[in-house]
Amino acid sequence: MNKLKIAIAGLGRIGKIHLENLLQTPNVDIIGVMDPDPDAINYAREKGIDNVFQDYNQLLDLREIHAIVICTPTNTHADYVEIAAKSGIHVFCEKPLDLNLNRVLEVLEIVKKSDIKLMLGFNRRFDKEFSRVKHSINKGVIGDAHLVKITSRDPSPPPVSYIKTSGGLFLDMTIHDFDMARFLVDKEVEEVYAKGAVLIDKAISDAGDIDTAVIVLKYSDSSMAIIDNSRKASYGYDQRIEVFGSKGMIKGNNLLKDNNKIYTKDQIGSSLPMNFFLERYSEAYKIEIIDFTNAILKNSLVSISGDDGLQSLRIGLAAKKSLIENRPVKLDEIK
Amino acid sequence: MNKLKIAIAGLGRIGKIHLENLLQTPNVDIIGVMDPDPDAINYAREKGIDNVFQDYNQLLDLREIHAIVICTPTNTHADYVEIAAKSGIHVFCEKPLDLNLNRVLEVLEIVKKSDIKLMLGFNRRFDKEFSRVKHSINKGVIGDAHLVKITSRDPSPPPVSYIKTSGGLFLDMTIHDFDMARFLVDKEVEEVYAKGAVLIDKAISDAGDIDTAVIVLKYSDSSMAIIDNSRKASYGYDQRIEVFGSKGMIKGNNLLKDNNKIYTKDQIGSSLPMNFFLERYSEAYKIEIIDFTNAILKNSLVSISGDDGLQSLRIGLAAKKSLIENRPVKLDEIK
Amino acid sequence: MNKLKIAIAGLGRIGKIHLENLLQTPNVDIIGVMDPDPDAINYAREKGIDNVFQDYNQLLDLREIHAIVICTPTNTHADYVEIAAKSGIHVFCEKPLDLNLNRVLEVLEIVKKSDIKLMLGFNRRFDKEFSRVKHSINKGVIGDAHLVKITSRDPSPPPVSYIKTSGGLFLDMTIHDFDMARFLVDKEVEEVYAKGAVLIDKAISDAGDIDTAVIVLKYSDSSMAIIDNSRKASYGYDQRIEVFGSKGMIKGNNLLKDNNKIYTKDQIGSSLPMNFFLERYSEAYKIEIIDFTNAILKNSLVSISGDDGLQSLRIGLAAKKSLIENRPVKLDEIK
Amino acid sequence: MNKLKIAIAGLGRIGKIHLENLLQTPNVDIIGVMDPDPDAINYAREKGIDNVFQDYNQLLDLREIHAIVICTPTNTHADYVEIAAKSGIHVFCEKPLDLNLNRVLEVLEIVKKSDIKLMLGFNRRFDKEFSRVKHSINKGVIGDAHLVKITSRDPSPPPVSYIKTSGGLFLDMTIHDFDMARFLVDKEVEEVYAKGAVLIDKAISDAGDIDTAVIVLKYSDSSMAIIDNSRKASYGYDQRIEVFGSKGMIKGNNLLKDNNKIYTKDQIGSSLPMNFFLERYSEAYKIEIIDFTNAILKNSLVSISGDDGLQSLRIGLAAKKSLIENRPVKLDEIK
Repeated sequence: MNKLKIAIAGLGRIGKIHLENLLQTPNVDIIGVMDPDPDAINYAREKGIDNVFQDYNQLLDLREIHAIVICTPTNTHADYVEIAAKSGIHVFCEKPLDLNLNRVLEVLEIVKKSDIKLMLGFNRRFDKEFSRVKHSINKGVIGDAHLVKITSRDPSPPPVSYIKTSGGLFLDMTIHDFDMARFLVDKEVEEVYAKGAVLIDKAISDAGDIDTAVIVLKYSDSSMAIIDNSRKASYGYDQRIEVFGSKGMIKGNNLLKDNNKIYTKDQIGSSLPMNFFLERYSEAYKIEIIDFTNAILKNSLVSISGDDGLQSLRIGLAAKKSLIENRPVKLDEIK
Repeated sequence: MNKLKIAIAGLGRIGKIHLENLLQTPNVDIIGVMDPDPDAINYAREKGIDNVFQDYNQLLDLREIHAIVICTPTNTHADYVEIAAKSGIHVFCEKPLDLNLNRVLEVLEIVKKSDIKLMLGFNRRFDKEFSRVKHSINKGVIGDAHLVKITSRDPSPPPVSYIKTSGGLFLDMTIHDFDMARFLVDKEVEEVYAKGAVLIDKAISDAGDIDTAVIVLKYSDSSMAIIDNSRKASYGYDQRIEVFGSKGMIKGNNLLKDNNKIYTKDQIGSSLPMNFFLERYSEAYKIEIIDFTNAILKNSLVSISGDDGLQSLRIGLAAKKSLIENRPVKLDEIK
Repeated sequence: MNKLKIAIAGLGRIGKIHLENLLQTPNVDIIGVMDPDPDAINYAREKGIDNVFQDYNQLLDLREIHAIVICTPTNTHADYVEIAAKSGIHVFCEKPLDLNLNRVLEVLEIVKKSDIKLMLGFNRRFDKEFSRVKHSINKGVIGDAHLVKITSRDPSPPPVSYIKTSGGLFLDMTIHDFDMARFLVDKEVEEVYAKGAVLIDKAISDAGDIDTAVIVLKYSDSSMAIIDNSRKASYGYDQRIEVFGSKGMIKGNNLLKDNNKIYTKDQIGSSLPMNFFLERYSEAYKIEIIDFTNAILKNSLVSISGDDGLQSLRIGLAAKKSLIENRPVKLDEIK
Repeated sequence: MNKLKIAIAGLGRIGKIHLENLLQTPNVDIIGVMDPDPDAINYAREKGIDNVFQDYNQLLDLREIHAIVICTPTNTHADYVEIAAKSGIHVFCEKPLDLNLNRVLEVLEIVKKSDIKLMLGFNRRFDKEFSRVKHSINKGVIGDAHLVKITSRDPSPPPVSYIKTSGGLFLDMTIHDFDMARFLVDKEVEEVYAKGAVLIDKAISDAGDIDTAVIVLKYSDSSMAIIDNSRKASYGYDQRIEVFGSKGMIKGNNLLKDNNKIYTKDQIGSSLPMNFFLERYSEAYKIEIIDFTNAILKNSLVSISGDDGLQSLRIGLAAKKSLIENRPVKLDEIK
């Protein structure tokens, strides 16, 4: 393969990021994009993309697509992956594959039978702050991991209309943390206990969701993880991890807007964390998509497999069940 | 009252601290001490205490004791408080009053019928780092509290012999954190979920206890607290709190041995946290015992009541039940 | 002007950075480059630049060059700027214009008579960490500035061969700090006292230079600045500023490789500062060159004028004189 | 010697601190105090000191004084030390011995001929934050010291009436920093360059002093120190050191009122530095006076000799000369 010919489906916020990053990736040609929105189509044209479509199948009809990046709404992911897999096209798909476990299993089966590569977009794995935590853990710096703590708080809730179709906090927001909990320590989760509340906006309750949550995960070796989520941190996007082990502890911290310190008669002031994921994870998105293209170009394993997506989904479904039934739920119960 | 005449029962590590601090407290006379250990008795004599006894009742026979500080082993607390209460002597008692809920209720009833003051030794409330967190919360700096996070890790486990009679991790160690969880936000706990493991020392398991724990508390207003404990943090005594609310977040941090920063070719190094509670909380112990003597001298309410001890015990018992039954336990179940 | 047609002279480390950044700048076409080194020429060809030359005049013969970016060795700067000015081509020139004050004055006169824009490459002004310090000072956060402190230490000395032609530490390295000292507080320097030593490498002394320096600047309003330099900080590139004023203090800090904190039995470890200027100032270089292109496209003033270069050179020459004569030198003495 | 019998002359702010600390020092009896102020005398009586005098000679007439702590105004120091030395009484004297170099030399000669111990009160040497910096330097952590940086800023200027008799900023305030500069690296100063300004209060200028200063010291091995002073840091008492060496850098930092961090929509806020020297150095004062009593009880060398006081005075006088003559002054010029 000379240059990787890649297509993009969906040019929302994330799709545009992937487009920008792919435009700057050597050995990659963006041969076409698809989005039903005419504005998105114009955006792509301005970037010099000639083959622009409003329909996924038209995009796939292009000759010689090696890989597709799927950033369309969640409810299209499974179908689009299936179509691509059957066409022998490698897929990078934003999380989640689907909110329905059976459909995910079905699609993964199809992918398995094809010989395409499927990588899921858990972008935080590529965040330098977090990947270096994992790197240190792997080197043995903290010994055996006893407790993983993940804090993940958004600066403000999404629109209630979005929340209604999001699959709920655990599948929409915490799913990144579930993946992080598995990624950091390379352990599988055995049991989930979730506790939630609506403390920010009553409308979120009316939409059948929660806005604040605490989740306790038990790994198969009895070590544990704690995740805490909030839909609204007034001081900005709060993304921290802490892993405690037999020989020490390691923390991955927020990145601040700058490192200035201002001393006045009232206090010493520092800048707030970067505002939201587009800023905090901008470097991670770049590394992520390069990682995907490299996996194809070098015919190596993708970093984040379909099974990774499956496991995070199962943990999320267990959390939902735990919240409703107010009891710890074994992952075995989620099939 | 001219000078407060105070006696001390028990001259172990904590008893000695109270003795030293009381010796430097104006308006206080230490009129006698009691400890079965001859070494402790000698220690007191060297400090200039004349009335030294090996028996609690002898100590109480001294005329004109206004108050007693009880630092003897846990299994004597209830009896000693009862005797003092019946003698009209004010009591400062190290936590817990007793490991048995009924006995605690009984003693509190006796205290209630007397007109003595009873204060319990939850020393961390007087730690500057933590009391200022509470002060800021009270001022409204973070709005409504949504989530309290408490990390409490010891530098190394106590002897297994001690663990066997300690009442277990939740009543011995976490009980301080339960009190902190109530203290910081002035809310009562409604439900407890506890998860534990033995990850440090198999002998702790053999003694019927755990060495690593995560506890989720639900307050009566649906907000939550998370506590994490370990019996062994290789980097020292780890005592941190974080309270997240509608308008912000506040953190109380570890105190380090010093604030030096050393830059070398390998890293930027900082000093470790103060080694253990005697160092970290040395100032808190001073403030605590002055607070107690002031409550008597000024005839004001004590800062930490018998009911505070009772509630922490109930949360601890709920945590034990939750751990055994692997389910969230309502505090109402603990009577 | 539709698109800015820009040429680059010199494709060393800095030239390549400008090339990469300009390739990603909208509204800019790189129409040609020049470098005597065949490897550099090949590098440019691979980037898709067709017009590649080994001679500056050939490059200038290209039609329709709007602007040129000069990154060739210092001893060519003055001539190349002069040629460009006479051809009506806007110039971005790496610092310094020349090590000889008269030649600088001469060239600035030529630039003045032309109507080209000349911007000098004091890249640190565009560093977010530092530009925000200035922004806060401008807002009045620290009141009147009383003292500016600049720490600027390289991770390791350049080759002695380079040092010999560099103009010495003050004109090669400190000149950035002199510019920063003027930039941060918008004040002119009136007097300079410099003290230096060779503490790192005797060979630097043999080359007639120093490797460690302290410089005190007196501004025209009697407020002061302190700069300290070292050619070798074992822990990496150390770039910090602190401005103290009547109402407070503000610090701009090093950027670390990551913000991880590792707690072990020995210490709490943080990562080192970014290794050197290519990393630390990579964002600054991007903003700098966009700033230059915008000044042309919008026909606005450049951010860093020829006079800025002149003043930093004068301070540097005063520092040299001060070092040799071991006395404070008025800037008026440097003409 | 059974118990060290110690007297205190002068019960101002510092004298009271020494009194309190000595009251809590084992093996020490305070056998008498002296202060012309009746309030101070009453204060001492309330502390249980029976022998109280308003005259220094009366105090010295007490039998069996082993040592005296002199905290009276500066202009009495030399005479009081002389009297004590001639009476064979060990002396702890607050800095400076005298503002006049010849008088200091005279007194040191007298002390030398007696066999008393004389220790000077450079309390900052006992500050944990700073003494650990020195400890690390001694261990070789940063290799050879190339540059010492000391920041020393007061929260607010003293009354102008005080300033008039203080000997000026360099002898009153910076003298502590001069001592620190010698102490940290165990090197002697060879040359001093001082630059000062009045940027805070015109009245200080009228009193013949400055309120802002920068001093460059050259050690005998060509390494350097920078000190910066201000009489008014709006954010509190600013006491920091940084020592840069061939293998690294070490910083001693301010101690903050607490380590809380408050995150709100505007910023991350930390507490200010401890307000002033009584707070910041309260532990240092304790250690200092114990160190003095130990030197006598164990008949060992005092930590801070008369010569230490002499050298700091000489540096201070050189700084004054440098300021007036605007040129670097060799310490050899100060005799």
